[in-house]
Amino acid sequence: MRFLEDLQVGQRREIGTYAFTAENIVAFAKQFDPQPFHLDEEAGRRSLFGGLAASGWHIASACMRLLVLERQQEAAAEAARGEPVAVWGPSPGFRDLRWLKPVLAGDTVTYANVVESVRPSDSRPGWGIIQARNSGTNQRDELVFSFLATAFVPRRPAGE
Amino acid sequence: MRFLEDLQVGQRREIGTYAFTAENIVAFAKQFDPQPFHLDEEAGRRSLFGGLAASGWHIASACMRLLVLERQQEAAAEAARGEPVAVWGPSPGFRDLRWLKPVLAGDTVTYANVVESVRPSDSRPGWGIIQARNSGTNQRDELVFSFLATAFVPRRPAGE
Repeated sequence: MRFLEDLQVGQRREIGTYAFTAENIVAFAKQFDPQPFHLDEEAGRRSLFGGLAASGWHIASACMRLLVLERQQEAAAEAARGEPVAVWGPSPGFRDLRWLKPVLAGDTVTYANVVESVRPSDSRPGWGIIQARNSGTNQRDELVFSFLATAFVPRRPAGE
Repeated sequence: MRFLEDLQVGQRREIGTYAFTAENIVAFAKQFDPQPFHLDEEAGRRSLFGGLAASGWHIASACMRLLVLERQQEAAAEAARGEPVAVWGPSPGFRDLRWLKPVLAGDTVTYANVVESVRPSDSRPGWGIIQARNSGTNQRDELVFSFLATAFVPRRPAGE
């Protein structure tokens, strides 16, 4: 799951889990999304969300945190085994970001991704482009979050 | 710019400005995007970004902050004038999120939005659906960030 040659359409992996608490929901909202239903339990209960709800950007940022930590752990393990470490390029953007159900204080979201397409880059020799759908599922196994990510992935060095 | 009837394709407005500093870039990255080029000036300089670079999710979250504060100020002004206040529905998601250029420590991003489509909702009487492109431009007038947002907007109450 590291160099372009290791990636195949349909591959799925779990990225990690994030526990949304009243504390981290309110802390994020104060900084970046100060709407009442993200700041106050009672206002959340009276809203369409039905409880203190995490900002959508908090849900997305938590996914990024887990993606980065998981990739760093994998790179450390590869380096420890003496294997070449694939350094991915920056992402040019995302498509089709969806918040499908509210995430409330007390919910735990498990993030996963599935590879949707893999191809060599026309413009950058030595690189490929993958698309993967990242998603988040709550403790009741309900899909709450999803987006399609594009990333530049290096090709495996010759001879490795 | 509040009820469905007030919105027209092509309307543009500035949402506000956010100053990216080494402090707020690193604080966000520690929590949500702990990659070296978001955490350390020297690592940033050696990266493709060429400097300490803000996480893309920080750039998006700062846009959300300004959108919320601007809407709250507008609602307060409407209420002060005794006008009806439009309460928008939650957003079902975003499309086509793009980070077009790096945002580095010291950069100031001005966010704006342009209405791209307006239509009544088929499924929810009393509501319409708008699409607007939110974008961020740096102090050199370079487009750095863009996404297409969808929102539910209430129709103006009869007689107002």
